[in-house]
Amino acid sequence: MFQITVLYNHPDDPAAFDKHYDEVHAPLAKKIPGVQRYTISRPVPGPDGQRPPYHLVAVIEFADEAAFQAGMGGAEGQAATADLANFAGAGVTLLTGPSEQV
Amino acid sequence: MFQITVLYNHPDDPAAFDKHYDEVHAPLAKKIPGVQRYTISRPVPGPDGQRPPYHLVAVIEFADEAAFQAGMGGAEGQAATADLANFAGAGVTLLTGPSEQV
Repeated sequence: MFQITVLYNHPDDPAAFDKHYDEVHAPLAKKIPGVQRYTISRPVPGPDGQRPPYHLVAVIEFADEAAFQAGMGGAEGQAATADLANFAGAGVTLLTGPSEQV
Repeated sequence: MFQITVLYNHPDDPAAFDKHYDEVHAPLAKKIPGVQRYTISRPVPGPDGQRPPYHLVAVIEFADEAAFQAGMGGAEGQAATADLANFAGAGVTLLTGPSEQV
């Protein structure tokens, strides 16, 4: 498999971020050809009560790197990437690489 | 679902880290009761050629928070957590929270 992990910094307006993510960004990302599995998680404070370092974690899996490149390079992938400017101004970290089920 | 995302900083000795992760840590983590899905990804440099900010990403999914708490709080969860001291001295970020498939 080939995976992109997206780590979103805490936004200034979490409610507006979540609304945009759920109603606009997730549907855009889900349309990317080749996406086999797409999960999101919203971290909560740990046992120490500290705010987690990221607001949202998205994991998108493709069959392999070629499928990832084709999907992200196509119109749908470009649209999802361009949409980041509409809600992720607080910053986002993209991690891409081969992945496997243990 | 309930998910733990584990982000490992770059180790001083990546080969030793990877060997310990694959041969010791992953088998320990896999034994935790309630683990439904466990993936690892090793990020590669992006288009800019920069080293990614983390060396390894692990995502472990449980049915719900109760299963997560029971699994991590049991003997197997404690053994996997204790093992971090044996290979993750460069630092590790744990993100836990509810998750869903989009």
